[in-house]
Amino acid sequence: MNFIDLIDYAGTFAFAISGIRLASAKRFDWFGAYVVGLVTAIGGGTLRDLLLDVTPFWMLQPSYLVVTGFALLFVILLGKQVIRLTNTFFIFDAIGLGLFVVVGIEKSLAAHFPFWVAIMMGMITGSAGGVTRDIFINEEPLIFRKDIYALACVVGGLVYLLCFKMGMMPVLMQILSAASVIVTRVLAVKYHISLPVLKGHDDQTPSKIL
Amino acid sequence: MNFIDLIDYAGTFAFAISGIRLASAKRFDWFGAYVVGLVTAIGGGTLRDLLLDVTPFWMLQPSYLVVTGFALLFVILLGKQVIRLTNTFFIFDAIGLGLFVVVGIEKSLAAHFPFWVAIMMGMITGSAGGVTRDIFINEEPLIFRKDIYALACVVGGLVYLLCFKMGMMPVLMQILSAASVIVTRVLAVKYHISLPVLKGHDDQTPSKIL
Amino acid sequence: MNFIDLIDYAGTFAFAISGIRLASAKRFDWFGAYVVGLVTAIGGGTLRDLLLDVTPFWMLQPSYLVVTGFALLFVILLGKQVIRLTNTFFIFDAIGLGLFVVVGIEKSLAAHFPFWVAIMMGMITGSAGGVTRDIFINEEPLIFRKDIYALACVVGGLVYLLCFKMGMMPVLMQILSAASVIVTRVLAVKYHISLPVLKGHDDQTPSKIL
Repeated sequence: MNFIDLIDYAGTFAFAISGIRLASAKRFDWFGAYVVGLVTAIGGGTLRDLLLDVTPFWMLQPSYLVVTGFALLFVILLGKQVIRLTNTFFIFDAIGLGLFVVVGIEKSLAAHFPFWVAIMMGMITGSAGGVTRDIFINEEPLIFRKDIYALACVVGGLVYLLCFKMGMMPVLMQILSAASVIVTRVLAVKYHISLPVLKGHDDQTPSKIL
Repeated sequence: MNFIDLIDYAGTFAFAISGIRLASAKRFDWFGAYVVGLVTAIGGGTLRDLLLDVTPFWMLQPSYLVVTGFALLFVILLGKQVIRLTNTFFIFDAIGLGLFVVVGIEKSLAAHFPFWVAIMMGMITGSAGGVTRDIFINEEPLIFRKDIYALACVVGGLVYLLCFKMGMMPVLMQILSAASVIVTRVLAVKYHISLPVLKGHDDQTPSKIL
Repeated sequence: MNFIDLIDYAGTFAFAISGIRLASAKRFDWFGAYVVGLVTAIGGGTLRDLLLDVTPFWMLQPSYLVVTGFALLFVILLGKQVIRLTNTFFIFDAIGLGLFVVVGIEKSLAAHFPFWVAIMMGMITGSAGGVTRDIFINEEPLIFRKDIYALACVVGGLVYLLCFKMGMMPVLMQILSAASVIVTRVLAVKYHISLPVLKGHDDQTPSKIL
C-alpha cells in the first residue's frame, strides 16, 4: 500500500463517516447507514465513471466496501465520542476531497476528454457523493447552500490546468492541485466564506413558477 | 450557428432558468443555483445518453455550460423583473421541449433501437431534467401532478411515428412532431387540462403499504 | 412464455403495484403513478445494467412497460379493494425479489465480474428500484429503516456463492438462492425482525455535522 492508497482510504473513510453520522441522526438501521456511507464515499466517482463510460472504480477491488464497513464499525463502537472527532474528520474529508478531484481530472484526461470536461469531472468526483447522500436522507443538498465545497473542486481543477500549461511535472501538479482544494476548503470553513445567496426574487412557490 | 442550434440554446436557456428560479426560491447560493439550472437543462439528455451508451452530449462541446452561466447571470441581474417574463419563458420552455423530444427520438433510432424505445427516450430527454431538478430542491416532482408535460412528449413521439409510417421527409416529421409537443403543452396549460388523479384508494401511510 | 418469465412478470407487477399505491397515497396523477410504478419495477435492474455497461434489460423488449400498464389499470379499476390484497402482493413482491437477485447475480458473473460484485449487483437489482421510488415520492427510503430487505438480497447472494462452491447444478443454485431471499424476507416481516438502529449518537442537525 503506497502513500496515494493511504490518502484514498482516509478520504473514503471520512466521506463514509459523514454519511453514516447523518444516517444515524435520521435513525436509519445499520444497513441503511452503511448504504448511505457507501454512497457518500463512492457516489461521485461512480457517476464520473458512468459518464466517462469506464468500469466504476469500486467494482475493480473490494477495498471501498471494506473501508466503509470499518467506518460503520467505528461509529457503532465509538458512539457519542465520534462528535469530539468532528474536526479530525473535517481534515480527512478535505484531504480526501483534494485527492478525489485530482483522480477525477486525470481519469478524464486519460479518457481523452478536454480540460473543461476534466474540471467538471473533478468536481463531480468530489461532490456528487455528498449530494446523493443528502437526497437519500431526504434533505436539500447542503453543498448548494453552505460554505464553499464544489467550488473548491473547481479551484483545484483550474490550478491543475495552470500547472499543466506551465509544463510542470505530474507529481507537482497533483500536489499543488490537491493542496489548493484543501486550502480553499479549510479557509472557507474557518472564515465562514460563502457564495452569495440567490435571494428570493421569486417569493412564489414552485407551483407558481412552473 | 444554424436554426436548430438557436432553438437548442433557447430551450436550454429556458430549462436552466426554471431550475435557477426554483433554486432561488429555496435560497440556494449562486453555485447551487447554477448546478440546479444545469441539471434541469442537461439531466434528461444525460440519462438518455447513459441508457443509449453514447457519450453524454454536453461533454462534446461546452455550450450548454456557457448557456447555463448566462441564465444564472440573467436571473442575478434582472432580479424581480424575471417574474414578468414568466410567460415568455413558458413559450421558450415548450419550444425547447419539442426540440428535445425530437432529438431524443432521432438519437435512439440512430442507435438502432425500435420505435417504442425511441418514444420513451424522447420523453426521458424532455422530462427527466425537471424530475432531477425537483429531487435536488427536495420537492415532489411537479410533472407527476400538474398539467400535461411528459405526456406531451409521448404525443410528439406518436406523431413522429405516424409521419414516419407515412413516409414523410425527415424535416417535415421533425417539425410536425415538435409542433405537436408544443401545441399539446400550450393547450394543457391554457385550459388547465390535467390527467385524473389516482385518488386515495390508499389513505394508508407509506409505511403501512409496504 | 416459460416459468421464469411468469415469475418475472409477477415480480414486476408486484413491484409496480407498490410504486403505484404509494403514488396514489401522494395523489399523483395517472401518468405520475405509472412512472413511479415503472421506476420501482425496473430501476434496480437499470442501475445494475448501467454499472455493468450492458443495454438496460427493459429496452430489449416492451413487456415491462406493458406489465406496469396493467398494474396501473388494476389499481384504477380495483380501487379500495386493492388494500385487501396487500398480503398477496407481499408474497409476489418477495418472490419477485428472489428472482431479481438471482438474475442480478448471474448477469454480473456472465459479465466476468467477481462474486463480491455479483452479490452487490443482486442487492442493487432487488432494492434500488424501491429506493428510487421513495426518492420520487419524497420520502426517506423505507428499506433503510424497516424490516430486512436489502439484507435478504445479500443472504441470497451468499447462498448462491455457497452452492456454487459446492459445485451444485445451476437450476438448484437458482432455486435455493431465490428461496433463501424469500424465506428471509417472509420471516423478517412475520416476526418483525429488524436490524438495530444506529441510534442518535448525533443529536446534532445535519448542518452541524458537516
